[in-house]
Amino acid sequence: MSQEIDALRALLDRFRLEVSTLRQSSGTENITIGSYLLTRLEQLGVTSMFGLPGDFNLAFLDLVEDHPKIDWVGNCSSNELNAAYAADGYARVKETSLGVITTTFGVGELSAINGIAGSFSEMVPVLHIVGAPSTGQQKNRPLLHHTLGDGRYDAYSKAAQQFVVHESHIVNKANAAADIDTALVECITKARPVYLTLPTDMVYEEISSERLKIPLSSTRAPNDPEKEDFVSNLIHERVKEAGGDVVILVDACVIRHHVRKETLEFLHKTGFPVFATPMGKSAVPEDYNRYGGTYIGNLSHNEVKESVENAKLIISLGLLSSDFNTGNFSYHIPTNRHIELHSDHCKVQFARFEGIAFKYLLPKLADKLQEFQKTALGIKVPSVHYPIPSEGSSTTITHAWFWPRLSTFFQPKDVVVTETGTSNFGIADSTLPEGVILLNQILWGSIGWSVGSALGAALAARDVGLNRTILFVGDGSLQLTVQELSTMIRKGVTPIIFVLNNKGYTIEKFIHGKHRAYNDIADWDLKALLNTFNAKQTHKTASYTVHTKSELDELLGKADFAKADKIQLVEVMMEALDAPPAMLRQWDSKK
Amino acid sequence: MSQEIDALRALLDRFRLEVSTLRQSSGTENITIGSYLLTRLEQLGVTSMFGLPGDFNLAFLDLVEDHPKIDWVGNCSSNELNAAYAADGYARVKETSLGVITTTFGVGELSAINGIAGSFSEMVPVLHIVGAPSTGQQKNRPLLHHTLGDGRYDAYSKAAQQFVVHESHIVNKANAAADIDTALVECITKARPVYLTLPTDMVYEEISSERLKIPLSSTRAPNDPEKEDFVSNLIHERVKEAGGDVVILVDACVIRHHVRKETLEFLHKTGFPVFATPMGKSAVPEDYNRYGGTYIGNLSHNEVKESVENAKLIISLGLLSSDFNTGNFSYHIPTNRHIELHSDHCKVQFARFEGIAFKYLLPKLADKLQEFQKTALGIKVPSVHYPIPSEGSSTTITHAWFWPRLSTFFQPKDVVVTETGTSNFGIADSTLPEGVILLNQILWGSIGWSVGSALGAALAARDVGLNRTILFVGDGSLQLTVQELSTMIRKGVTPIIFVLNNKGYTIEKFIHGKHRAYNDIADWDLKALLNTFNAKQTHKTASYTVHTKSELDELLGKADFAKADKIQLVEVMMEALDAPPAMLRQWDSKK
Repeated sequence: MSQEIDALRALLDRFRLEVSTLRQSSGTENITIGSYLLTRLEQLGVTSMFGLPGDFNLAFLDLVEDHPKIDWVGNCSSNELNAAYAADGYARVKETSLGVITTTFGVGELSAINGIAGSFSEMVPVLHIVGAPSTGQQKNRPLLHHTLGDGRYDAYSKAAQQFVVHESHIVNKANAAADIDTALVECITKARPVYLTLPTDMVYEEISSERLKIPLSSTRAPNDPEKEDFVSNLIHERVKEAGGDVVILVDACVIRHHVRKETLEFLHKTGFPVFATPMGKSAVPEDYNRYGGTYIGNLSHNEVKESVENAKLIISLGLLSSDFNTGNFSYHIPTNRHIELHSDHCKVQFARFEGIAFKYLLPKLADKLQEFQKTALGIKVPSVHYPIPSEGSSTTITHAWFWPRLSTFFQPKDVVVTETGTSNFGIADSTLPEGVILLNQILWGSIGWSVGSALGAALAARDVGLNRTILFVGDGSLQLTVQELSTMIRKGVTPIIFVLNNKGYTIEKFIHGKHRAYNDIADWDLKALLNTFNAKQTHKTASYTVHTKSELDELLGKADFAKADKIQLVEVMMEALDAPPAMLRQWDSKK
Repeated sequence: MSQEIDALRALLDRFRLEVSTLRQSSGTENITIGSYLLTRLEQLGVTSMFGLPGDFNLAFLDLVEDHPKIDWVGNCSSNELNAAYAADGYARVKETSLGVITTTFGVGELSAINGIAGSFSEMVPVLHIVGAPSTGQQKNRPLLHHTLGDGRYDAYSKAAQQFVVHESHIVNKANAAADIDTALVECITKARPVYLTLPTDMVYEEISSERLKIPLSSTRAPNDPEKEDFVSNLIHERVKEAGGDVVILVDACVIRHHVRKETLEFLHKTGFPVFATPMGKSAVPEDYNRYGGTYIGNLSHNEVKESVENAKLIISLGLLSSDFNTGNFSYHIPTNRHIELHSDHCKVQFARFEGIAFKYLLPKLADKLQEFQKTALGIKVPSVHYPIPSEGSSTTITHAWFWPRLSTFFQPKDVVVTETGTSNFGIADSTLPEGVILLNQILWGSIGWSVGSALGAALAARDVGLNRTILFVGDGSLQLTVQELSTMIRKGVTPIIFVLNNKGYTIEKFIHGKHRAYNDIADWDLKALLNTFNAKQTHKTASYTVHTKSELDELLGKADFAKADKIQLVEVMMEALDAPPAMLRQWDSKK
């Protein structure tokens, strides 16, 4: 009876709040600063917020918990670093929206800083909201807990500055709305993290909701038409000189700056062969018949290397020339045969053109270069259907066998997350069906990232109607962020988690210290993990260990496994010093 | 046969290395910069180094792994934040030595930054060694992994600067030895973290080992005699005026600046009653007959509050007046009845005297104030033997019962670690036997710290011959850093871990959001944890769940449990909204 009353009251509270939120978003009344921020996030499509409670953010979390559209993914079972990884994964999958993490002053925000720096490096829009001491405390600077003991209340934001494109400190009512809006626009348009402090006394201050009537824009201004014409004419000239012998190379920024659609139209109209870098993999559907595979400089398959490097002209889209993304800087693409299109500038051979965004240039170019389609379609493109090697009678699961084998297991619109390490290299030899989103962190390379990221990715995937989330992580990396499995269970997402058990940090072993103890790790009972984190068996889970190719074949073939309706962990036993072919090639090239 | 050969070869390598190290430390030959650093650490008593491998520190880790005296605690099963916590715990227990953590550029060092900031705030000497790109790379700034993608190689050290008292960058042979020495001296004498980058190409550069002949000094210069006389005369006058009605209040800096011995001698000679703050608890043996308990302003037991606040003069030693350490700034000690002695200055009423260190002042004062001993011994001191409440027939384990009950379980020289949260408050009602070292992080208050810290503490305790390590952590905090249990198992330390299972972040609930979902956490099978992290059962472990007072009584009484010869986890079931009396008082005082 009293329980029912409680339930009804709770329901009433929810409705009351929704009515109030609706009223507010129509701009008819005042709104608290905290709710203003949440309404903006809702407008931008944010449905999950990551983070941990702490005494300086609790008042704000009341608003979050009561918000009808934004779910607080209390990474209660986790920590702030994992929450930052999750916000990163969420933002990567939920294109044009952003990831949000809320932490508390000092202890919380600093724990997240590596994750935020990773989002900066990899160009992922993450908003970091920090619950801060009241404006009065920030002025008088008492010796509060979570402080450094010397009154330097600004030390944390000074550290944060290094890893964000913008910081906003909400310190008065007058500027609060504008400051919040600026922070959000900077975050989305620059696709990089932003830092926002929200002092405890500001959360419930009321401001006008007028500005909420105008949604924030995430699109950048169009290119200068004259300059754009000049550039597209110039490129047309170069393509003509090359007789249409052109290949396209797609990279990370096509994904980060949401230029997949324009890229695909450009490819269809022109017919040029297209290749992807490791960070650009999945930017173009791999079943597209003009797609030729992954180009990694000297580490590429021979056919790919020759196709790219022998072309008379290479047009790269959103190139990010980091060491691991370029096969240790082993590109053989001379500047006079190279045109680079980027999110905010482009380069034609040695000439640089500022302010020309490829998002707007590509459609123009597509029309202009359509005349070369016939020639372009005559250029042979390497096959990307890598055969599964037979390897005689050996039952051992090798990387050489594993990754091509997975190609037929992947389904359209799967979200695939690969950990820094062997998985980042291995996935190059899988072919991904249409609409697969591939997440990796090849530039920043923080081990453990993929587990938190997969949580955020799975939540975003569920939200936008994508397919399964599939994670590949090594046993070493999993140990850094393992508690995120618990949050996955709690939130009811159902990723398939392949743990490549190769007894330690194989990638570090290849870099240095092949037989060193510091690259070994503790033996965990991986099959017991999901149950340990699910004491009351509130969610269905399944764990498997596969020792042989046939065991893995059998598992992958099971409809019950493949439909991924529960969280599943597959321990894949591998040799400690086995590695994907691309990695072995890199290692050989260093010797 | 071949195994034996391998073993002999390994042994030979060890001896070769030791001979070389010995030669080096006698200054007869050149030494690599990496080995110079390790030799210095060895001289300072460092026996464990914490951290994770990463490609920019692997070359240095070769030297660490080969070092005969320094053990690499590859927190392989862990992460850098936990490693920083472990280095902090190690340094706290191993007084006059320091904690050392080694991480890799960017991703590794940033993950550790919250732990380092905590050591700064709490004044713990931790050396953070960061394996950095080569000096050539730092000059040319290629787009390496672990960088921000914009060439800012100095971004991480700019962030680190906020949380260290000194940074050294080893960039050339000529200054390397001096730079290392300066870093170490700053770390030890200021009892705060120091940041040291070691580029990959510097590790094996050879330098003269001449400087190693002179050990580094960790003692500060003596006080100016004239000034010291002036101050001690002044204090003598004040004590005389007060008719010897004086109480002593010991706080954190007595522990951090290693002034326990001087403090105890001072207390014995003068006979003044002594009280401790929460952060000063265990600075003075609690079975000392003039010890009167914990003073926390308004949150103190009545008798304690009256004894302290009614004294005509209060001499505080190493006071750290943070919110949680002072019962929310509720001290009633007027400045004109207060003398403060600190590590580098002191205050007599309103007068401040720079450069007067209590380490040297206390012995002088002890002699000078000895004449008041008889009067002092007449002052009544409250009893610290808190009775275990009977609580009628209730079998539920309450905080009010739990902490006094533990008093007789503790043994001399135990190391006790309490987590930020209920445990930090609860331990005030336990009485600790002689020589117990109590670790807490009341100022910084980063949840999850205690688990990493307990690992470092246990290793240091084993090293210096202390007794058991006993950890008190809530179920919520444990989830942040749980993988450290795995490192404990791997390193064979045998702490007793009490997990207070009260279904979430109880301390946050008391601060705000008593019934909010964001303060709840996932249900874990705590009893399964140790087995999950110990797949091959290579180490003995034991896990228990206790639901009632009698179950806990029985467990505590078992000799097999109490001797702590294996790692043991005790899940203590408690009510979600129960809390230690001091916390309830704080909460009441806020209402």
